[in-house]
Amino acid sequence: MSSGAADIAKLAKTAFQNSQLIPSSERVTALHSIRTELHARKDAILEANKEDLEAAQVEVKSGRLSQSLLSRLDLVQGDKWDSMLQGILDVAALPDPTGRVSYATELDDGLELYRVSCSIGVLLVIFEARPEVVVNIAALAIKSGNAAILKGGKESNRTTRLLSQAISAGLAKTSLPDTYIQTIETRAEVSSLLALDQYIDLVIPRGSKDLVRTIQQNTRISVIGHADGLCSIYLDESADLEKAKRIVFDSKTNYPSACNAVETLIVHESLLTTIWPEVANVLLAGNVQLICDPPTLTALTMMVPQPQNLNTHVKSSDAETYDIEHISLTLSVVALPSLSSATEFINLHGSHHTDCIITESEPNASAFCQGVDSSSTYVNASTRFADGFRYGFGTEVGIATGRIHARGPVGLEGLVTYKYKMRSKDKAGHIVGEFGLGKKEYSHKIISATSVPF
Amino acid sequence: MSSGAADIAKLAKTAFQNSQLIPSSERVTALHSIRTELHARKDAILEANKEDLEAAQVEVKSGRLSQSLLSRLDLVQGDKWDSMLQGILDVAALPDPTGRVSYATELDDGLELYRVSCSIGVLLVIFEARPEVVVNIAALAIKSGNAAILKGGKESNRTTRLLSQAISAGLAKTSLPDTYIQTIETRAEVSSLLALDQYIDLVIPRGSKDLVRTIQQNTRISVIGHADGLCSIYLDESADLEKAKRIVFDSKTNYPSACNAVETLIVHESLLTTIWPEVANVLLAGNVQLICDPPTLTALTMMVPQPQNLNTHVKSSDAETYDIEHISLTLSVVALPSLSSATEFINLHGSHHTDCIITESEPNASAFCQGVDSSSTYVNASTRFADGFRYGFGTEVGIATGRIHARGPVGLEGLVTYKYKMRSKDKAGHIVGEFGLGKKEYSHKIISATSVPF
Repeated sequence: MSSGAADIAKLAKTAFQNSQLIPSSERVTALHSIRTELHARKDAILEANKEDLEAAQVEVKSGRLSQSLLSRLDLVQGDKWDSMLQGILDVAALPDPTGRVSYATELDDGLELYRVSCSIGVLLVIFEARPEVVVNIAALAIKSGNAAILKGGKESNRTTRLLSQAISAGLAKTSLPDTYIQTIETRAEVSSLLALDQYIDLVIPRGSKDLVRTIQQNTRISVIGHADGLCSIYLDESADLEKAKRIVFDSKTNYPSACNAVETLIVHESLLTTIWPEVANVLLAGNVQLICDPPTLTALTMMVPQPQNLNTHVKSSDAETYDIEHISLTLSVVALPSLSSATEFINLHGSHHTDCIITESEPNASAFCQGVDSSSTYVNASTRFADGFRYGFGTEVGIATGRIHARGPVGLEGLVTYKYKMRSKDKAGHIVGEFGLGKKEYSHKIISATSVPF
Repeated sequence: MSSGAADIAKLAKTAFQNSQLIPSSERVTALHSIRTELHARKDAILEANKEDLEAAQVEVKSGRLSQSLLSRLDLVQGDKWDSMLQGILDVAALPDPTGRVSYATELDDGLELYRVSCSIGVLLVIFEARPEVVVNIAALAIKSGNAAILKGGKESNRTTRLLSQAISAGLAKTSLPDTYIQTIETRAEVSSLLALDQYIDLVIPRGSKDLVRTIQQNTRISVIGHADGLCSIYLDESADLEKAKRIVFDSKTNYPSACNAVETLIVHESLLTTIWPEVANVLLAGNVQLICDPPTLTALTMMVPQPQNLNTHVKSSDAETYDIEHISLTLSVVALPSLSSATEFINLHGSHHTDCIITESEPNASAFCQGVDSSSTYVNASTRFADGFRYGFGTEVGIATGRIHARGPVGLEGLVTYKYKMRSKDKAGHIVGEFGLGKKEYSHKIISATSVPF
């Protein structure tokens, strides 16, 4: 146990508890203050980012890091910097997720019970290389009233360190503690923190399935994982050709490295010589690689004329194909005889993320959405819609791949929990001994309230 | 890994998935069917219970089991059997917790998104010796559409085995799989099941803090723990004497072994010679043992006349006192100088379960409820109110001691999660590529809906 990690965790818990009586408007003030600090420190931060990029370039040249990492690391390119600052203001402008009443009842005359949304406590958030995520997650944590400890990718440490200093400086100008948001840089610190369930209330890993599983395996603390997606589209017997072509193409090619891109296409057997070849042609023309089971492969080889790219872009699948998340322009394809077999296949091979049926049948649409055990199930719409902004949450913590608390695209609501507050207005207070057989009964009159009156 | 456990887990998952297209009314039918089977098998079950009791009596005589276990094990005494059967009907009659829409929005013309409550999947529930809990939990799982694997106390195995057979027989007369509810008997099976996160979706341990922590430490699966409570009452500077006496007495003596009984009394220093001695007198008259810090102890020894039981019922506290959950007629007492020190003390020593302030001050009530980081915070009401039935949920899964998903007293809502269902009614379906800069914008018009229309 590094005493450093314990100190960080304790500071975070204290910061959280000391923030509980500060009005939520101060969190909005803090977000504006952080934006101002970042703006003032732009040159120094981008200089540090340049150093991170130069160090990463050496690693890329020697083959130890991928080229795509450079683009994720770069805070200068395009409008990344401005978007990052604007994102803080956008989060600041969202409705306060805390203090909302979701249940209120009178247990007896003068005894009122309220269930009210509140911050969770101390979050430990672990994520990938993009440095702007530090600012994004800090904004979400502050807006929802949680203290947070953040760990980004080590390649962005120079940038992250300065971003973190700006965040602390911004907080220091408010009544919130400047230890409200802390960053750590090493895996050893993460390991130490995972043991500190007396201080840390929720771990949010965003990354690979392996990262999420490793963390779940090594902590008693609750984990809300954000891992990859293995999404499927099922072309139902009654699928419309144009919908099939448009939706499969968009789901695969719109942004192939996203977790909501489609990875597996399930074709109803009756479509093998009708809709399937036409969908395949569109995909092949879009440079998509197809990995096919025997029926879908045979259907393509028997086409006249043969599809372009047949020899270069079409391969045979094997037993592992349908468990692969390609996150590239590659699509696994399989033919199945029925809706129920497609549902079973998705529940077995998919990652319970987002799955779509293309159908003209109402009963099949309904059965698919009910039977597929995923956080998002769609009828005739691209899997790429699975996203917090698109769902209307105004922001996104990520797409949670677990099953409880927050599932699927998560907005600020995923960063709050609830507590009960009860008040007796009776002149003698309220005791349980007055209720029961032959005594008082609970009235349970629903109270109409949007906030707790005390 | 025992292959038996893997088979059980796989059967449970299959049962869950096969139940997804069965209307929820069938779950109500199943509950009635199970009640009928139990009624028909009453004699055999009570005979098995007698054998469990006889075996336990041997253990009690030899000192290996506590006397209180016998009463928990006994299914014959009082109205336990009838209450158990009535409980099934009560759960059957509750509103269906699945299929409820909590968010619905139109992303674009003809593109509708619904967030709808749904069953979680396969539950693994681990609990104590009382055999009727098997029936109670089975009813809750079935009502909420979850498959479940149940592990009770080993002392009740003979009874549980027959209860379980009756449950399966009841299920077999419906279209739900008879493997929907399964019971296991050994800790080895629990250990094996904790590794099977591909089949089991949620673990619910009900028991000691150690049980909950051990399970959290040994599984990747999400855990919603139900452990003990270390509840406190704070007598604020402005506390009313009568409220203090009534509420502290009720919280301690109404049912001392419950998790919502008070364990620690915090006395504002200004009350040491006024309210505190009177509260102490009431408690001592009720045979309560007081473990006091120096100021509260001195206050009692200086009383004229000295309280009865002073020599037998009042002791000095030490460093560990305030971390003990007595679950008996014992109360820890400490004097503190302020509301903020009381809040800090509770957040440090309490178990974030249920805590109460006794006060006549609105601002202090408000600050206490906001600042105390517990699932239930009360003003002038007994901690014993923390209970699913009393809160108006009609039933209780338990009192969750974690912080996410379900917190505090949990009703059927704690056994469901949600999924998103989206449908395009557009003649070309919906794709993401049509949205963005210079293209279509998301409309996000809230839809008023209580159920999903497809």
